Amino acid sequence: MGIVEPKILRGFRDLLPTDMIALEKIISVIKDVCESYGFIPTSTPAIEYKNILLAYGEETSKEVYFFEEPDGNMVGLRYDLTVPLSRVIAQYKNLPKPFKRYQVSTVWRYDKPNPGRFREFIQFDIDAVGTSSISADSEIILAIYDCLERLGPSFIIRLNNRKILNSLIVFAGIEPNMARSVFRVIDKLEKQGIEVVKQELGPGRVDISGDKIKGLGLNEVQIKKIEEFLSLPKNTCSEAIDSLKELFKSVKGAEEGIDEIKEIHDHLDCLSIPDGKIIIDFSIARGLDYYTGPVFEVVLTDAKEYGSVVGGGRFDELIGYFTGENTPATGASVGIDRLLEALKKLKLVKTKPSTADVIITIMVKDKLGEYQKIAKKIRDAGIKTELYVGEKTSIKEQLKYADKQDIPVAVIVGEDEFTRNEASIKDLRVIKKQKIEIGEREAYLKERIGQKKVPMGNLVEEIKLMLKK
Amino acid sequence: MGIVEPKILRGFRDLLPTDMIALEKIISVIKDVCESYGFIPTSTPAIEYKNILLAYGEETSKEVYFFEEPDGNMVGLRYDLTVPLSRVIAQYKNLPKPFKRYQVSTVWRYDKPNPGRFREFIQFDIDAVGTSSISADSEIILAIYDCLERLGPSFIIRLNNRKILNSLIVFAGIEPNMARSVFRVIDKLEKQGIEVVKQELGPGRVDISGDKIKGLGLNEVQIKKIEEFLSLPKNTCSEAIDSLKELFKSVKGAEEGIDEIKEIHDHLDCLSIPDGKIIIDFSIARGLDYYTGPVFEVVLTDAKEYGSVVGGGRFDELIGYFTGENTPATGASVGIDRLLEALKKLKLVKTKPSTADVIITIMVKDKLGEYQKIAKKIRDAGIKTELYVGEKTSIKEQLKYADKQDIPVAVIVGEDEFTRNEASIKDLRVIKKQKIEIGEREAYLKERIGQKKVPMGNLVEEIKLMLKK
Repeated sequence: MGIVEPKILRGFRDLLPTDMIALEKIISVIKDVCESYGFIPTSTPAIEYKNILLAYGEETSKEVYFFEEPDGNMVGLRYDLTVPLSRVIAQYKNLPKPFKRYQVSTVWRYDKPNPGRFREFIQFDIDAVGTSSISADSEIILAIYDCLERLGPSFIIRLNNRKILNSLIVFAGIEPNMARSVFRVIDKLEKQGIEVVKQELGPGRVDISGDKIKGLGLNEVQIKKIEEFLSLPKNTCSEAIDSLKELFKSVKGAEEGIDEIKEIHDHLDCLSIPDGKIIIDFSIARGLDYYTGPVFEVVLTDAKEYGSVVGGGRFDELIGYFTGENTPATGASVGIDRLLEALKKLKLVKTKPSTADVIITIMVKDKLGEYQKIAKKIRDAGIKTELYVGEKTSIKEQLKYADKQDIPVAVIVGEDEFTRNEASIKDLRVIKKQKIEIGEREAYLKERIGQKKVPMGNLVEEIKLMLKK
Repeated sequence: MGIVEPKILRGFRDLLPTDMIALEKIISVIKDVCESYGFIPTSTPAIEYKNILLAYGEETSKEVYFFEEPDGNMVGLRYDLTVPLSRVIAQYKNLPKPFKRYQVSTVWRYDKPNPGRFREFIQFDIDAVGTSSISADSEIILAIYDCLERLGPSFIIRLNNRKILNSLIVFAGIEPNMARSVFRVIDKLEKQGIEVVKQELGPGRVDISGDKIKGLGLNEVQIKKIEEFLSLPKNTCSEAIDSLKELFKSVKGAEEGIDEIKEIHDHLDCLSIPDGKIIIDFSIARGLDYYTGPVFEVVLTDAKEYGSVVGGGRFDELIGYFTGENTPATGASVGIDRLLEALKKLKLVKTKPSTADVIITIMVKDKLGEYQKIAKKIRDAGIKTELYVGEKTSIKEQLKYADKQDIPVAVIVGEDEFTRNEASIKDLRVIKKQKIEIGEREAYLKERIGQKKVPMGNLVEEIKLMLKK
């Protein structure tokens, strides 16, 4: 049988330890925050029936990995966690309401891959279901705010409301069936600027690659009204709300969206969040069609190239596709892979090859049980302790491995030390710093740089002291 | 558009919070142990090329979810984490060796579903790659031992070695190409008993449902030799090793497997592991064909119906299918779903609906920002605090929700309390215990059972005291 070439699919990736340790750290921070808000974990299958995945429309159809499973059913891999959540809510009627859950899972989208955009990626979703109270929207935004504060990057949360955008359609005299297309164009404002938006609302444009992008064909009056809306003064949230109220004063039903955004603003205002961290931005629509009320997204100020790393909003109608009656719900989705890449770029996550604190080298092969006893003693004190289980017998090679893995402390016990019930501990960081070549056992024992001989009874204490340095 | 019926595929399941909280606890214990041994996390895609998944043979072919992805490649969902690991080792040649990794991921197998056996399930794998040192095998067994000790169930770890089984084939004069079939039959000893094993090695048998099971057609001498092997005295590991040595004394090359199992035994012997927790069982083969050396499995003594919850062994040849040269490797796989079901049955995991410690009820709707300030204060002290974001305005209904979610403490602040800068805290466990119906605000305020009025400045301290009770 021939050799099988080891490779993975385009748009997919392996996460090796350095990335994975950082990723786990990020997930654990977000989990902690979610649980501190009373969100509880759930999990759903990766595979769902095709008609479940397409329940609210064909919008995402082209991106889904559909296939026929062995029982003969048409199924697909989940492309988000919101549709499966809606299915869950419909299926288990006795869940407590509000149902405040989080889920961190892989999703799959057959999309154009590029650096930072994968066909398989991890979403961390937070949702509150069964409540139309705007306090649920505020809470989700707050939880996201807390996550980002803990993770450390500079960020802006941009708020809007689909109801305000719906009022814009009325205000500008646009056909209701054009609404979603208009929202998608407006959503490009931040990235592409007002001129591009105007062209795409009107006659269309030719992009830098020479491709023609079809316009929506709105007339000048309509486009002017949208521009007026998009350029409302909004230096503060209050100013944005007041100016919008004035602009929409004769639009029937416009109060609802404005009141909701004001309510969120009032909730957050009490918490002395610095100016400019949460802003109102009337261009935000979020891509997905299922949003119905407040929507928001997060951009990292110093890593804008990763786009929005969090997005969310209210989806009061989605669950209805499975139940026939609307169930209010609101949520957010954190793009963990993008966040990882951004935080790596910003040097806000440690990217280290190992989490071990200590390595125990093996000097006397037939005393392995004894080494394991020493390892157990150190582990029991809560110190992550790796016993060298590789094939190299020389201390030089074993310490080289520890060095590669960035393990800070080595414990060395040879025949002599066993006899005297002692151990040598070595601060490998010091050696690294001094860029000293680790010699063979004899040479290196002579040097004793960053090294200390301690009685076996004090080993744990001495390691703790060395780690603290 | 009609309503889409909310349902999931046969053999798949949703994990609702009660299960999921328990599952996360289990995973976190195992992760902690792994990291304490210096294992580091990795992750691989759910989808692999078909030829990767089948690299070492067609053994698992029928169980894999294969499909054609949109780019036109034949792919499949991973059915274990060992084949993808082998692909990773072959693909990234510069990984440090030994490469000690863990991975917790979903895998998929189109298998006959039954209670506790799912088509989508979570495996927690620990592996040490690039070392033929038996200390790596010992370490993995030790780490598994520690995991189980921390999780609490009674268990037995059964050890064997594929090399010993290979020697059995020689000893019994069986054709080498029959070896794997013989191992699969022998592996049934614990579950089915020696008579069934003998029948299946020989002429075959008819099972209780009346189905005929074909036998391997071994002759009586061969079967007698296998029986002799399986009934070796093995009250202690030393006895098992000694009696096997005697039996195999004229089998060429039999020492290697015996020495390896002795070496593992010696390593573990130093750690004063109680008798009978790790035993040698010559019938253990483990299902998968890729094992080459030490193999082991774990059965929970008080939950045997879940079968082996952990299995593992050395697979020195698997990586070679991707590289052309053997790379030694050893590992274990924990069946998280089975473990969850078993620990639930044994009442060794808490199955609670929420992890929140405190609920803050909303009495004055327009003071939501104030409530959020209170929530933040409590959260900042490390106490998981849920703000009620549901639609119910009555205190009775809000506390009913808290009761359903098993949240121990409620914070109640009404207009009066706001004015006096006070809060009421209520021990909901006391109420639950006394089985007292929570009345409307007035009635319940009169009762004040388990309730205390405290100055806002002492709120956090008072909650801590109440939670400690």
